[in-house]
Amino acid sequence: MKVTVWNEYVHEFISEKVREIYPKGIHNTIGDFLKEAGHEVTTASLDSSAVVERIQKHRAEAGQEPLEIADLPAGGELTDDILNATEVLVWWGHVAHEQVCDELVEKIRKRVLDGMGLIILHSGHFSKIFKTLMGTSCDLKWRDDDKERIWIVDPTHPIAEGLPEFIDVGDEEMYGEHFDIPTPDELVMVSWFKGGEIFRSGCTFKRGNGKIFYFRPGHETNPTYHHPQIQQVIKNAVKWAKPTTFAYPKYGHAEALEK
Amino acid sequence: MKVTVWNEYVHEFISEKVREIYPKGIHNTIGDFLKEAGHEVTTASLDSSAVVERIQKHRAEAGQEPLEIADLPAGGELTDDILNATEVLVWWGHVAHEQVCDELVEKIRKRVLDGMGLIILHSGHFSKIFKTLMGTSCDLKWRDDDKERIWIVDPTHPIAEGLPEFIDVGDEEMYGEHFDIPTPDELVMVSWFKGGEIFRSGCTFKRGNGKIFYFRPGHETNPTYHHPQIQQVIKNAVKWAKPTTFAYPKYGHAEALEK
Amino acid sequence: MKVTVWNEYVHEFISEKVREIYPKGIHNTIGDFLKEAGHEVTTASLDSSAVVERIQKHRAEAGQEPLEIADLPAGGELTDDILNATEVLVWWGHVAHEQVCDELVEKIRKRVLDGMGLIILHSGHFSKIFKTLMGTSCDLKWRDDDKERIWIVDPTHPIAEGLPEFIDVGDEEMYGEHFDIPTPDELVMVSWFKGGEIFRSGCTFKRGNGKIFYFRPGHETNPTYHHPQIQQVIKNAVKWAKPTTFAYPKYGHAEALEK
Amino acid sequence: MKVTVWNEYVHEFISEKVREIYPKGIHNTIGDFLKEAGHEVTTASLDSSAVVERIQKHRAEAGQEPLEIADLPAGGELTDDILNATEVLVWWGHVAHEQVCDELVEKIRKRVLDGMGLIILHSGHFSKIFKTLMGTSCDLKWRDDDKERIWIVDPTHPIAEGLPEFIDVGDEEMYGEHFDIPTPDELVMVSWFKGGEIFRSGCTFKRGNGKIFYFRPGHETNPTYHHPQIQQVIKNAVKWAKPTTFAYPKYGHAEALEK
Repeated sequence: MKVTVWNEYVHEFISEKVREIYPKGIHNTIGDFLKEAGHEVTTASLDSSAVVERIQKHRAEAGQEPLEIADLPAGGELTDDILNATEVLVWWGHVAHEQVCDELVEKIRKRVLDGMGLIILHSGHFSKIFKTLMGTSCDLKWRDDDKERIWIVDPTHPIAEGLPEFIDVGDEEMYGEHFDIPTPDELVMVSWFKGGEIFRSGCTFKRGNGKIFYFRPGHETNPTYHHPQIQQVIKNAVKWAKPTTFAYPKYGHAEALEK
Repeated sequence: MKVTVWNEYVHEFISEKVREIYPKGIHNTIGDFLKEAGHEVTTASLDSSAVVERIQKHRAEAGQEPLEIADLPAGGELTDDILNATEVLVWWGHVAHEQVCDELVEKIRKRVLDGMGLIILHSGHFSKIFKTLMGTSCDLKWRDDDKERIWIVDPTHPIAEGLPEFIDVGDEEMYGEHFDIPTPDELVMVSWFKGGEIFRSGCTFKRGNGKIFYFRPGHETNPTYHHPQIQQVIKNAVKWAKPTTFAYPKYGHAEALEK
Repeated sequence: MKVTVWNEYVHEFISEKVREIYPKGIHNTIGDFLKEAGHEVTTASLDSSAVVERIQKHRAEAGQEPLEIADLPAGGELTDDILNATEVLVWWGHVAHEQVCDELVEKIRKRVLDGMGLIILHSGHFSKIFKTLMGTSCDLKWRDDDKERIWIVDPTHPIAEGLPEFIDVGDEEMYGEHFDIPTPDELVMVSWFKGGEIFRSGCTFKRGNGKIFYFRPGHETNPTYHHPQIQQVIKNAVKWAKPTTFAYPKYGHAEALEK
Repeated sequence: MKVTVWNEYVHEFISEKVREIYPKGIHNTIGDFLKEAGHEVTTASLDSSAVVERIQKHRAEAGQEPLEIADLPAGGELTDDILNATEVLVWWGHVAHEQVCDELVEKIRKRVLDGMGLIILHSGHFSKIFKTLMGTSCDLKWRDDDKERIWIVDPTHPIAEGLPEFIDVGDEEMYGEHFDIPTPDELVMVSWFKGGEIFRSGCTFKRGNGKIFYFRPGHETNPTYHHPQIQQVIKNAVKWAKPTTFAYPKYGHAEALEK
């Protein structure tokens, strides 16, 4: 399948810790295990150097020290050609949601309605594309440095394929309810957090002809995408989100079929 | 309950047929039976005379005859005060969706997420507010002058209260599948059309703290809102959509509840 | 509304601890706050003295000490007259599910399909009536003496009316996933347990014309039904489960409506 | 995949019309196109000759002419070995539901809860196994000799793979709402009938670890299972219902995972 992995690719430039965990960027870590699973993978990102430059300017204006910035290769652009060929798009973003231009968001939305699968990871809950497709605020509670365990509540689901009853994720950022999303079509996973919260962590949605999966874990300062069971979930989700070759619905004026 | 009925209020000015069916406008017909049900009803509409003027200008430019225009009282504006006091908003629109300004749409969306109920009628499927809350195209098939029968498929639902097994609506505009909406939280009614189509006609959705009901029938040239069972559905829906007095969720950073 | 509260009424006879928490039986504690809420309440139970006698006989045969048995008034029988007049039935059972005769279970099932509401509490997950209506094993994980917090995940639901974001239940028996039920029609609440588990604690189901709510908490050795917010949930659930006065569906051979 | 096709195999013995349409029995027609799709197919049936003998005896006692009975090979038995090896079971039954013994029904139910897929066809809505798994009456309206068109309402679903917007089934027995089933997990198809009814024709359910698909068409006197698109639906459904290799949930007493 043709899979594209989007990462805003900003944290890696400004945090040594993130760089240590994901030396080639989150997109390449995810892309690598999807390649191993047999997919044809493309990666794409913001022009991160421009984003980082803006961050440094804001810090200077606020009298803050500049952040240490790494010299990393720029990610590729998410062109029309790539988007139109993509069967499943995986999305990671966090601090630079606003830098994704509205025109691109609308193009992605149309591709989803046309059948492209979409996997939204972690802080992507606040991405423009997810909020637009959900219609809600997608807000939630959060806290750094908690401990997460993900329980499978729907063992029949293809996204649960090959998994144990629960995944001990280890240290992660906490996301807590209420999570302001529409009722998921299917609730596959629910997270437990040591600090006292629960969260609907694995949720499917259908929009138009496209399938969407929201998957909670993956804070940039935790090595979560190196966890084999987390990788298994993402691999399963990509497979599940494959477009259906259904006759595209005809809309508009329709002649009567019966007299 | 405080109920506001919105009608774009354009067809009544330009079609004698519509005026005969709804002499005081669709909003007042709906408002009247909701008042009888004990609600405090406000009506609101576009500045229709301005809309009509624009229609006439377009026709003149295209070399078409001007439409006959009635002299009707302007509807009230949907002010912030009215919107903020509204517990359930009923929405009818058709040819002038684009004239509803984006700022008002965003205000309505926030009110829904805060708990206001929303009843979308018939061609309101293409209103900005419905499309924004759904995230999909909300497109469908249509044809004038068919015959509709609405079957109740969920007899446990409060919106089915007091209804027979099906409603013979009579002559109506046909709406046919595929209806490009997210999977409804509850499917209460499905329409049968003589011309050969079916349609998910009574659908509930939850967005944020608000309840939404889409109800299909109500073409402006058919006297559908005078049908007692159709009125019953709308009365039931308004009652069902009442806001819950739930503690509004707290979003953002959260301290741990457990050590 | 006419509400009947069923309690198998066995633990109260054989455990001093349970008797201290529920001196008049769990059914009367629940019945009392439902009466205060304005309902006409009837209580019913097994012939507990017979059940207790059987328990003592088993213990004697196994060479165990007899349990201390209290002298308590017998609960009323769940007669046809009571069942047929009941609008919502609340069910608590634990050790004596097998003593509920199959004939009664089938009568209750028919009443639910005819529209009677049914609230299943805590260990009622293993009652014959719940298992019959669900079709699954209704199995789960359990452990005594944990700490429970119930999160509301659907703030729009009438069963969440008047509640805070979460309920701190305090000490309770743990129930953990996987909970082998059909996908709930609506998931209203999810429990967090200190020991590391989560549980779908507030679930609605529709069967025939009847509404069903499963609500997790209420172990007999914890004073959970004295907790005001737990009482609020049960009061809300009873109100929500009210039968709809829908025209009862006609089944079987049907003449064509159209030629 | 290992697929078993069950057909009660009675109509073929007593109706020349059915025999003409399905000379080797409904099970072999279905089995053949599933074999072509690459599955390892086993067929099973009642001991139909015994069933037919009983029918003749009843007729004789009622003073009716004996039915003409064909001399057909007996179908194989649904043994434990076959059942335990089956990954997806396809079920067709109509007049002999009561002849399927309760012990077999319970074995099938356990296999479904353990993960076996189950496709229930047409009049199988009244089979013991379907009613047991649903918990409801599974009743509906019916009428011979109508005309059916099946609309796809969920184009994202794997069961819709490769299909057009609707399937013109042609002459079929009408099944009409209300269909007394639990709310389906997914509603994939809705039927239109010329006589004025609609029906939820393609419904998915999950029970335990197993996936269930109910598919409406297939009256024994109509050549429906020779229709290429109907075959496509059944092939898609078998593929979709494949068991997930999930770690089987552990039930019962559980030690705390956290201190």
